[in-house]
Amino acid sequence: MTSNLDNLRVVLVATRNPLNMGAAARAMSNFGVRRLRVVNPYEVAFREARSAVGAAALLAKAEQYENVAEAVADCKLVVGTTVAGRRELQHRLHRLDKGARAIIRQLKTGPVALLFGSERFGLSNEELSHCHWLMRIPTREEHGSMNLGQAVAVCLYELVRGQKTTPAKPPGKKEKTSAASGELERLTLVLLKVLHDVGYVKPRAVAAEEKLRRLVRRLELNPNDAEVLLGMVRQIAWKLGGNEKDNK
Amino acid sequence: MTSNLDNLRVVLVATRNPLNMGAAARAMSNFGVRRLRVVNPYEVAFREARSAVGAAALLAKAEQYENVAEAVADCKLVVGTTVAGRRELQHRLHRLDKGARAIIRQLKTGPVALLFGSERFGLSNEELSHCHWLMRIPTREEHGSMNLGQAVAVCLYELVRGQKTTPAKPPGKKEKTSAASGELERLTLVLLKVLHDVGYVKPRAVAAEEKLRRLVRRLELNPNDAEVLLGMVRQIAWKLGGNEKDNK
Repeated sequence: MTSNLDNLRVVLVATRNPLNMGAAARAMSNFGVRRLRVVNPYEVAFREARSAVGAAALLAKAEQYENVAEAVADCKLVVGTTVAGRRELQHRLHRLDKGARAIIRQLKTGPVALLFGSERFGLSNEELSHCHWLMRIPTREEHGSMNLGQAVAVCLYELVRGQKTTPAKPPGKKEKTSAASGELERLTLVLLKVLHDVGYVKPRAVAAEEKLRRLVRRLELNPNDAEVLLGMVRQIAWKLGGNEKDNK
Repeated sequence: MTSNLDNLRVVLVATRNPLNMGAAARAMSNFGVRRLRVVNPYEVAFREARSAVGAAALLAKAEQYENVAEAVADCKLVVGTTVAGRRELQHRLHRLDKGARAIIRQLKTGPVALLFGSERFGLSNEELSHCHWLMRIPTREEHGSMNLGQAVAVCLYELVRGQKTTPAKPPGKKEKTSAASGELERLTLVLLKVLHDVGYVKPRAVAAEEKLRRLVRRLELNPNDAEVLLGMVRQIAWKLGGNEKDNK
């Protein structure tokens, strides 16, 4: 399991408080998770957290990204975290214990990203649109909002908690593999271009783009199907007058 | 269960950092635990935590004690918390998940105290001597020491984890249903036509048609997504020069 946890990427999005970043890193170290990615952090916070006494080595090695798409490009499963009181009607929502079981299975086959939003706003709709599904920490409706470091600790605890008890797949049942997020994003963007070209969506319609991105993630494509679909859509795009097919 | 949680007393012993006290209180509020007791806290820390913006009401109502004996006097079960790397040979030691089950049983019958030691030293031997047994958070041997606020959050999460109070689905969320086969077949055929038009498949390529049909079924579309995709593909077909959009 330890080696499977190496497939987990904790992704902190737009974090502002260096103490929270440090706390997240500490919890990761406590529970044996090493790969930290930060997206668009408040620069001062990131610098302070890195130089803080006692900051874990993994904070020093944290990878920094401009946006969620890049941060999760190599991941086959992208899970957003949320708490009580937020209404996410656009996504499938699992309770933490159930979601963790699904993540543990996926960790056996490849990288998984676990996203935590900013302290103040959580994950934005654009950020959420990169997620396959969401995982909810069972806080009270009346006071759902958790401290970021504590939310990370609770989620990672749930992941290591099941270490001894996660049932193996029934014999003969293959692990389901999924397309990497980078491939899904390519498919999303080419499809979006086609839908622009045919007048199905208006250019720069942000809501439409997010809707499409969520739809593509919901398909839970395997790598082969994703490749086939991408080939189809590229051919359509090319025929429609672009030269999308020749681009990589 | 909510009323049973009212039997739980979280006891912070010799806490020094007001942020940790505030974080512990916040986690308690998140998970519906209201009774906080503090033993011999660093006075300044306690004052600061109480006056902090956003400090939970329960921090204001926290009861202060001189020593552990008084703080746990009314409790029928007293449980100390510890992490990996500490050797507690004097006490029975349960892993957090097992220990939590025992606490949940006891909460039905009367008050239970859950003790957290100081940030630096944990619980002293004297303090531990008031405990019936200890509960261990499964951190790594190499880095066992947890942040106090995170340790409280993880323990309380484990206590509420099994509760059934969380709604399985958010309000308004429907059961997952699948698109009817007829709808999938319409999608398959329009998509096939588009793929002919753009030269992706040859006309009357039976194997390609079957492959596409299987692919569309693998997507396990819900009725809404199937309709959206059908709309997209029809628009593409129409733009490519047919009048597929007007056909039913």
